[in-house]
Amino acid sequence: MEDKAQIQDAIKTQGEVVRKLKSEKATKEQIDEEVAKLLELKARIGGDDGKHQFVLKTAKGTRDYNPKQMAIREKVFNTIISCFKRHGAETIDTPVFELKETLTGKYGEDSKLIYDLKDQGGELLSLRYDLTVPFARYLAMNKITNIKRYHIAKVYRRDNPAMTRGRYREFYQCDFDIAGQYDAMIPDAECLKIVHEIFSELELGDFCIKVNDRRILDGMFAVCGVPDDKFRTICSTVDKLDKMAWEDVKKEMVNEKGLSEEVADQIGEYVSMKGGMDLAERLLQDQKMCKSKQACAGLSDIKLLFSYLQLFQVTDKVVFDLSLARGLDYYTGIIYEGVLTQAGVTVVSNEAQKGAPSEESVSVGSVAGGGRYDGLVGMFDPKGRKVPCVGVSIGIERIFSIMEQKAEASAEKVRTTEVQVMVASAQKNLLEERLKLITDLWNAGIKAEVMYKKNPKLLSQLQHCEESGIPLVAILGEQELKDGVVKLRIVATREEFDISRADLIGEIKKRTSEA
Amino acid sequence: MEDKAQIQDAIKTQGEVVRKLKSEKATKEQIDEEVAKLLELKARIGGDDGKHQFVLKTAKGTRDYNPKQMAIREKVFNTIISCFKRHGAETIDTPVFELKETLTGKYGEDSKLIYDLKDQGGELLSLRYDLTVPFARYLAMNKITNIKRYHIAKVYRRDNPAMTRGRYREFYQCDFDIAGQYDAMIPDAECLKIVHEIFSELELGDFCIKVNDRRILDGMFAVCGVPDDKFRTICSTVDKLDKMAWEDVKKEMVNEKGLSEEVADQIGEYVSMKGGMDLAERLLQDQKMCKSKQACAGLSDIKLLFSYLQLFQVTDKVVFDLSLARGLDYYTGIIYEGVLTQAGVTVVSNEAQKGAPSEESVSVGSVAGGGRYDGLVGMFDPKGRKVPCVGVSIGIERIFSIMEQKAEASAEKVRTTEVQVMVASAQKNLLEERLKLITDLWNAGIKAEVMYKKNPKLLSQLQHCEESGIPLVAILGEQELKDGVVKLRIVATREEFDISRADLIGEIKKRTSEA
Repeated sequence: MEDKAQIQDAIKTQGEVVRKLKSEKATKEQIDEEVAKLLELKARIGGDDGKHQFVLKTAKGTRDYNPKQMAIREKVFNTIISCFKRHGAETIDTPVFELKETLTGKYGEDSKLIYDLKDQGGELLSLRYDLTVPFARYLAMNKITNIKRYHIAKVYRRDNPAMTRGRYREFYQCDFDIAGQYDAMIPDAECLKIVHEIFSELELGDFCIKVNDRRILDGMFAVCGVPDDKFRTICSTVDKLDKMAWEDVKKEMVNEKGLSEEVADQIGEYVSMKGGMDLAERLLQDQKMCKSKQACAGLSDIKLLFSYLQLFQVTDKVVFDLSLARGLDYYTGIIYEGVLTQAGVTVVSNEAQKGAPSEESVSVGSVAGGGRYDGLVGMFDPKGRKVPCVGVSIGIERIFSIMEQKAEASAEKVRTTEVQVMVASAQKNLLEERLKLITDLWNAGIKAEVMYKKNPKLLSQLQHCEESGIPLVAILGEQELKDGVVKLRIVATREEFDISRADLIGEIKKRTSEA
Repeated sequence: MEDKAQIQDAIKTQGEVVRKLKSEKATKEQIDEEVAKLLELKARIGGDDGKHQFVLKTAKGTRDYNPKQMAIREKVFNTIISCFKRHGAETIDTPVFELKETLTGKYGEDSKLIYDLKDQGGELLSLRYDLTVPFARYLAMNKITNIKRYHIAKVYRRDNPAMTRGRYREFYQCDFDIAGQYDAMIPDAECLKIVHEIFSELELGDFCIKVNDRRILDGMFAVCGVPDDKFRTICSTVDKLDKMAWEDVKKEMVNEKGLSEEVADQIGEYVSMKGGMDLAERLLQDQKMCKSKQACAGLSDIKLLFSYLQLFQVTDKVVFDLSLARGLDYYTGIIYEGVLTQAGVTVVSNEAQKGAPSEESVSVGSVAGGGRYDGLVGMFDPKGRKVPCVGVSIGIERIFSIMEQKAEASAEKVRTTEVQVMVASAQKNLLEERLKLITDLWNAGIKAEVMYKKNPKLLSQLQHCEESGIPLVAILGEQELKDGVVKLRIVATREEFDISRADLIGEIKKRTSEA
């Protein structure tokens, strides 16, 4: 798109061309052609007369957060950050864009959704697609082999937005990851414990955490007869089982990915299996499955994982589910996904899910996901040194949607400020006195507001308190000034009493710490 | 930069070309030419054999924040947010990119520094350059005429980075703005009060807040004989006075911007003036200046502003400085800039400042800035309705730099986690017991860590506590399990005592709330 000034110049020039043709009595065809060009230019600038006309919107798939949404967001973040801190995590931050090549080859079929920056000279950059790849780049770049960190930041995907269901092109991820060479499944189990804690504390309703292992999937693909080079792409297809019926997933496997019907059917049998530690034990005995060393390693780890989950008291919500695949390329071991199974929100039609007939099918989609990615850091290290990692990402936007709907439904009003006291006056010409008093309050750390008017009406000052939930009003008048007092009004009860200037700060602190 | 796969293909093809020439016994010159092409291709891919070789770096002008930097950042943010909340602000958030046309025509000469996104189909987007224009877009889009909000987020400028001095291409802004039609200078004065509070609370050393008014500048330009259409560009030149000597600024005015020497000299006289309310009063009597209505309106407002600043008890740090211009196009009234005049950091050479000989010349640059922009929201409103706004932006990156240097210099260690207790064992085979105990602690809201090893050494567990500042260790052994107790160790004193499992949580809470 050109600069508006340039277009306006072009419109002027083109206008002259048209006028000249008309004055020269040119042919209608000639004139029409030049008029069309003029209209096109005018359309481009959006107005008839070239007047500035802005499209007042945010970019597709993005949104602003208003103060009420921010208050809810802050509350959700505090719960999540408290949990991450309780588990001893540090935090880091990385830039919103990375060198394009840092992101290349990490996301499989999803790579087409990456936002690139325009080449304005210098490096080629892309917006981060997740927080995991930048984390791996950070570890390799700084030669860090051990860290437990969280990172809360926005990521960017040129996906089809579904904003009412909380799917955006710009959205927050809240990631918790543990990097380091440790004994098997201990950090992995802690990640699931964290999902359990966060979902419980946010009171999101019933939920379920699905668990699987890439080694089990790969082993299963192998014993079912999928060629090696098709593992990742078949994995992507299996991943669609939470949105598509098995029939359609099978169709994709056969028609698009070139599997035989027979192979697809064998996969179909496995991916319908769900259970707990018992299922892992049963599959370890499975004639076909036990032919794959990989699958056996995965199944043994699932058993070990469940034993730790028992100690963490979270097995009630965890399901070993062979249909869980996850789309991203970089997972190498355990994978998991947290799903809300009932919540006061719109439910995804479960018609599309007839291939997986179970309670979980009534789902609002994944709100947490993650897994083990032992190879990713090595892809960045010049010598290929590996740093095993496992982590989880909380899909916070859907949680925001749920919390917002809850807040809408609830009678309780969401406060968007924390103001404790309004400095008001009933009479005229007291602006200076109000500013003096509020200075004392601010200097004492009290959250206070004053109307930016010389002579506001008392009623409008009180109304503002009612509307924004300010609990106290400090009212000044000639009499109060003479007496060295302030009239303190309790907004909720409309009670009023005089208090000396010396005692005012203490009284406000006492009354607002109680509230 | 091309796709790696493409280059690899090109390398293969070029390799064949070279082999063919050799087999055909071509001239050395011919072969050398083709070999050079081959080497160039190989160099482009970064390795001898076409093996993936990543450039391990962040994009130019950007940086990661490590956990220590994040701990400092969190502390600084908390101070600033507390201040904003004390003044009754709500908060909002906007997307990191806007429609390109939203940003067009708002920043004057700085527009060339805007990052554009690549056209991947759909809308043309740019990364936000500041938080003010998105705020104005938000107000117009939502038809909001009154709000006091803060917004803390990253902005993007393709500027020449000077990272050691805290100038980045991706950096935080902390903005506080008041929108609404109010009585003159009351919200404006509150913005300066806020800068004063934040600088004082962060203990950044001596500082000064420079104040001026665009109307005074424009009036001054008019009475000095600057043509109307050169006001903005001359304003940009005056703005360079904090980095360039007057001689050089004058040269730019005369040689590049086409002013006469005489006009420039008249400007030079005014822009060397500094003072307080008295200077405003003196200039209101100035023969030349008082010819401009605009300048008089600005000077009267400066007087009013200082009267409010007196009530807010901040005049000690505020200077009316006619050389302050600020680069951005959108300011319409009062403008200001907070400058650190001494701090334990590298000081900008004051040689470049000989045109402004005063104490402030020993400056580390602007760390806060803002002003009134009454026309910006109207630029977005289809009917041009105006919403008067005034605000301030805290330049947080320089503050981070200063705080980091302070932390480096101080003996006190910056803790990057808040872990209260380490669950440890002295003997083997107690992983299950450790996991059980830490589950109890987590469920009680205690911040606790455990080593992810089956049989860690006690020494390494204790060492980890010393290194990361964990104050307590809960030690389990066979004897303790038998007795139903835990051995609690105070890391600082190495004191140890047994405590019953029932009393453990209370004891940890008591000891860590004291700390």
